[in-house]
Amino acid sequence: MQLIVKKFGGTSVATIDRIKAIANHLAKEKQKDLSIVVVVSAMAKTTDQLISLAKEISPKPHARELDMLLTAGERITMSLLSLALHELGVQSISFTGSQSGIITDTIHGNARIQTVNAFRIKEELEKGKLVIVAGFQGVSLEKEITTLGRGGSDTSAVALSCYLNASKCEIYTDVDAVYSADPRIVKTAVSYKHISYEQMLYLAYQGSGVLQSRAVEFAYKYHIAVEVKSSFTFKEGTMVENMECSKVKAIAHKDNLRIIEIKCLEEDFSTLLKSIKTELFTYFIYQSNLFLIVEDKYLEALQADIINSKEMQGKSEILLDGKSYASIAITGFRVAYDNDFITSLLDVLSSHSITVYHLNNDGIGLSLLLGHHNLNEAINLIHNRFIEV
Amino acid sequence: MQLIVKKFGGTSVATIDRIKAIANHLAKEKQKDLSIVVVVSAMAKTTDQLISLAKEISPKPHARELDMLLTAGERITMSLLSLALHELGVQSISFTGSQSGIITDTIHGNARIQTVNAFRIKEELEKGKLVIVAGFQGVSLEKEITTLGRGGSDTSAVALSCYLNASKCEIYTDVDAVYSADPRIVKTAVSYKHISYEQMLYLAYQGSGVLQSRAVEFAYKYHIAVEVKSSFTFKEGTMVENMECSKVKAIAHKDNLRIIEIKCLEEDFSTLLKSIKTELFTYFIYQSNLFLIVEDKYLEALQADIINSKEMQGKSEILLDGKSYASIAITGFRVAYDNDFITSLLDVLSSHSITVYHLNNDGIGLSLLLGHHNLNEAINLIHNRFIEV
Repeated sequence: MQLIVKKFGGTSVATIDRIKAIANHLAKEKQKDLSIVVVVSAMAKTTDQLISLAKEISPKPHARELDMLLTAGERITMSLLSLALHELGVQSISFTGSQSGIITDTIHGNARIQTVNAFRIKEELEKGKLVIVAGFQGVSLEKEITTLGRGGSDTSAVALSCYLNASKCEIYTDVDAVYSADPRIVKTAVSYKHISYEQMLYLAYQGSGVLQSRAVEFAYKYHIAVEVKSSFTFKEGTMVENMECSKVKAIAHKDNLRIIEIKCLEEDFSTLLKSIKTELFTYFIYQSNLFLIVEDKYLEALQADIINSKEMQGKSEILLDGKSYASIAITGFRVAYDNDFITSLLDVLSSHSITVYHLNNDGIGLSLLLGHHNLNEAINLIHNRFIEV
Repeated sequence: MQLIVKKFGGTSVATIDRIKAIANHLAKEKQKDLSIVVVVSAMAKTTDQLISLAKEISPKPHARELDMLLTAGERITMSLLSLALHELGVQSISFTGSQSGIITDTIHGNARIQTVNAFRIKEELEKGKLVIVAGFQGVSLEKEITTLGRGGSDTSAVALSCYLNASKCEIYTDVDAVYSADPRIVKTAVSYKHISYEQMLYLAYQGSGVLQSRAVEFAYKYHIAVEVKSSFTFKEGTMVENMECSKVKAIAHKDNLRIIEIKCLEEDFSTLLKSIKTELFTYFIYQSNLFLIVEDKYLEALQADIINSKEMQGKSEILLDGKSYASIAITGFRVAYDNDFITSLLDVLSSHSITVYHLNNDGIGLSLLLGHHNLNEAINLIHNRFIEV
């Protein structure tokens, strides 16, 4: 029997009504003679509420206990969804990350999946049950409860798809497809039926919130067919898969960025970069200075990391200008290697008095750093000129 | 090193400030060179909130999934308390019921503890850590998460005290001792330093909310020294222990009781009583009819149980009068066998026009059924006349 893994994120299970809607969808799917594994996140805001309780107690909560706390979130969703399925007469069973056999390393708060011993899931699937799994969480070989960090539930779903040999991994979210740009900013943005792993990965890194980059990496590595779909319409979405030649052109963006400039000896850059959490920022080097680009919400954490890093003690000067930045990244056939494209891109922006602070060619795409206030205008200009044609 | 088990109920951990206060107490206790295991309940109202979410989905939630849902409650408390202890520099570690090795049968929602394989707790205690355990929950031999039902956390604490060979089990609550009557009703009620297991068990059955009867039974059976204490003052409370001759006289009461009268053949009583949940009610038989005394909040569930019981199909007539009742139970040296006492008790009540609907001699105490509106007056009359002297 064909096995499908379906993942529902926090906004998809935010209320009891949303949970009931998903149970209805699953009840219909189950009639299709499919094996189904459902991965759920915590209900929207639950994780934030739990974190804020922890922060009331400790500014830097103990990582092992914080994981124990946060995993209550998915536990609540998974059991509520299972209750809703039982109410519809669908035999289902919910499992924690630990019960699902999602084995991780011991890095609390940012654990990596080592393997999945999914024998309990398989047993229940064989009995014809729909299995619900708590996303975002696992258990270490030391039997400690761990969480996978940002994008954890997407990663759980892709990893389960891999170890269960699923024919597809469906990621349900609040958008219905991968678009050529954020449709809230670009009204004429178009959706795609297919996109390649490489491009999806690039868009994920560059700020498209549709899929988490870790999950795309995992899917890419093991060739898991992933579909991005809407948990509101359940219609056909975008397939992320191997494609020899993708015609997709798309824009991702990040907003509310800050730049930290570090003046120090160039030979110290690599030791510094190794000692701080690299998932929080991107960087470039210009005129012997190191520039870290970081989202506003991570600024404090990153500054603390830099100041506390042994390698930098007393060696550096850290500057922070008062400006807010944004980045735009464009991916598409030959974008990165087409000098004509790059020239006309810069022409269009400068003719609208939009300053480009930094341009980076990432091989598969091109990213620009500009002022926060120019973001919407620049995305629309670029989309109109280079994507829609 | 001496081992103490300390249990904190829902009102004791209701807020972040309460959790911090308890962490402070524990930090001081830890300096005394004690081994400490702390058992916590869910924060007050959390369990009710989770149940109401489940009820929004299903009027009769699937028992296995409801247990999965509810166990999120203690998980939140235990990790928050552990975070608070780490903040104070106390090395602590929190364990779920499953991690603690609390093995139960498979009766979801009302599981019984079979054994405790507390090797992880022991390992951590040996490292000098303070161990926090989620009360109310366990794991079955089939590896399913279970909950222990009413009074579950008290029972967890007493069972852990037994299997860990603790020198004392301290039950922290919102009163500071066992009193001769509810101090909210009887202003002159006195507190006791000691009470016997038998009397405590009687009071627990008869409505004293201080300790759960299951926990007292367990403590009695294995001779666990239990102390009832206040989580607000942390002062010396009441020791529940073996006493040859207890001088304690005390009153327990229940309010908002309803009476279900069942007319049926007397030989059906025992099969009926076996088929319904006996922890929800007490009963007596009068003039060939069966009378079930039940708290108002369980009335609907009990009626449904009776109507659905196979044994009673079509055989019985069920009557419910519109009245609200209350019960008063008195325990103390020879109370139950002293006819003079019983006579003067009834005299006092009748001289105040208080009707006694039923009187029951339970061996260790005497219980009376009277009208809800007479409760406060009757308790004060009895306390004033027979307990204070």
